[in-house]
Amino acid sequence: MTTSPTGADAVDPAVREELDRLRKSIDNIDAAVVHLLAERFSRTQQVGHLKARHRLPPADPAREARQIERLRALAEDAELDPAFAEKFLTFIIAEVIRHHERIAETGGTGTTPSGT
Amino acid sequence: MTTSPTGADAVDPAVREELDRLRKSIDNIDAAVVHLLAERFSRTQQVGHLKARHRLPPADPAREARQIERLRALAEDAELDPAFAEKFLTFIIAEVIRHHERIAETGGTGTTPSGT
Repeated sequence: MTTSPTGADAVDPAVREELDRLRKSIDNIDAAVVHLLAERFSRTQQVGHLKARHRLPPADPAREARQIERLRALAEDAELDPAFAEKFLTFIIAEVIRHHERIAETGGTGTTPSGT
Repeated sequence: MTTSPTGADAVDPAVREELDRLRKSIDNIDAAVVHLLAERFSRTQQVGHLKARHRLPPADPAREARQIERLRALAEDAELDPAFAEKFLTFIIAEVIRHHERIAETGGTGTTPSGT
């Protein structure tokens, strides 16, 4: 096997292969996560509508606190930074709130935030 | 089945049950996502070290642009907002950069950002 550089792409083929392998794996994981998030938002939409229909308070800070604690513990087990896991959940919940605000704006069932 | 309110928790038991079911599902999805993200960061750490070891440029804007396009398309198929999918990837990549900066700071292989 030759390692001679070809033009701009002067990378050892074995290294390039290893990089491609890792990137393929990263792409697979990203696809899985995107599909899981689609599923998650479908569930939170259902929660939003359920709460609106039954006049339950849209936000539930106690539920949110429990979610954060649980995710931090899971992250620790998985050797993921617990602070990042918390940041991640906050990021997702912000999107859930955005969805529910949109439901409220477009009439729908007249609900507001949350559905966590 | 009685629907009589009990104290502060004046929710129809059937509604409470449905809410609990949806939340359990959301919690399961979150656990799956946390584990996938742990796996993803393990891969990007490997990419970071590989690039550092072989003196490859840490950032790869072309790769990042392809990732964004791909995730947007996947999101559309999954009925997830493509703009959110892009925001999500940007959020994750920011964390990857933070990791690689830490590798650089702590000596390691003396690399900087990316590994996307």
